[in-house]
Amino acid sequence: MKKSVVLLSGGMDSATALAMAREQGFACYAMSMDYGQRHLAELDAARRVASALGVIEHRTIPIPLDAFGGSALTDPAIPVPASGGAGIPVTYVPARNTIFLALALGWAEVLGARDIFVGVNAVDYSGYPDCRPEFIAAFEEMANLATRAGVEGQRFRVQAPLIRLTKAEIIREGVRLGVDYGLTVSCYQADESGCACGRCDACRLRARGFQQADVPDPTRYQHGI
Amino acid sequence: MKKSVVLLSGGMDSATALAMAREQGFACYAMSMDYGQRHLAELDAARRVASALGVIEHRTIPIPLDAFGGSALTDPAIPVPASGGAGIPVTYVPARNTIFLALALGWAEVLGARDIFVGVNAVDYSGYPDCRPEFIAAFEEMANLATRAGVEGQRFRVQAPLIRLTKAEIIREGVRLGVDYGLTVSCYQADESGCACGRCDACRLRARGFQQADVPDPTRYQHGI
Repeated sequence: MKKSVVLLSGGMDSATALAMAREQGFACYAMSMDYGQRHLAELDAARRVASALGVIEHRTIPIPLDAFGGSALTDPAIPVPASGGAGIPVTYVPARNTIFLALALGWAEVLGARDIFVGVNAVDYSGYPDCRPEFIAAFEEMANLATRAGVEGQRFRVQAPLIRLTKAEIIREGVRLGVDYGLTVSCYQADESGCACGRCDACRLRARGFQQADVPDPTRYQHGI
Repeated sequence: MKKSVVLLSGGMDSATALAMAREQGFACYAMSMDYGQRHLAELDAARRVASALGVIEHRTIPIPLDAFGGSALTDPAIPVPASGGAGIPVTYVPARNTIFLALALGWAEVLGARDIFVGVNAVDYSGYPDCRPEFIAAFEEMANLATRAGVEGQRFRVQAPLIRLTKAEIIREGVRLGVDYGLTVSCYQADESGCACGRCDACRLRARGFQQADVPDPTRYQHGI
């Protein structure tokens, strides 16, 4: 059985990517990052999702990105804005996906996995540069020069199966594959029990996705939406 | 004053790269990784070098690569071989330079630095794929797609000033710049006080470099060489 490493944040996109990897017949190794994010509830969600979708192993790696700061997600002094606005938002974490994919690459090489799944999305998204197809392609190219496997001709693939889907399409795909979105947490400032703020960019995109997909929204909100 | 992030292992190459960055007029921010390497003495060496070469700040980031294993440097069950042999050696740590450069990129973006210095070398080296010029170029390309700064047209540069130098040339350059190589530790299995084994690939390349440069070798060995 082919192995894959799946980056699993605990949000809806990565849960769907994991379900898609499983449907493609991969034995899935899930990897989450404890990077000092303010929304720690997503790590509990990642554990629930990993268990529900039957991964072989789930690891949570501590990476102290909060030591750098520079993002509303890792620096308590920068508030999470209520809505997106123009340009790259303050919730952007410098080099986050590069760091996460690099760690996934390391684990994949040790496991003998050649496929890495990541739930990035460039349609209904927050405008982060490291969610775009050109970034994913450049990372894959680099990965094949960086590694023993790449040099020996066993090509790594970075699979981003959601990248060109709308949130509504992602949700329909997940529902088809049996993903329980009630287990997932997308909110940037969810409380300890995983209840969402209903106001941040991530909440707004998620709620609109369920609406447009015409699927009941299982999200628990702190104050309603 | 332009800022740069310098990856500093505690070995001779990265110490030289730091001295070269300083000579180019950069305010240097040094970054070391505590990645579960068996040669922890190199982190003490990195602190000494950072202090001697007057960096603005030195950070040591914990990254649990030993949780993955797959390398003689992070898995105590895999012995460090006495000499190099053919092909990529077992001291190769999967995706190590990708992970280190990714973290350097994150810190650089937060600091407003656009230059990252790394002491990789593709001449007198151990045959690691992530020390080659094509890897460095691909990482730089990817970095400029991954980041806010890259998208806004402020190009990141990954400077690998040693990449085409022999060890002897590196040593001569470092001596010219006042690097005290007695502070550095290259050995893969140095003891706690930083004394080198004299037998591993890193020791062998280092000793030959001093010989060829006709510079007295300040390395302290456990058993002579």
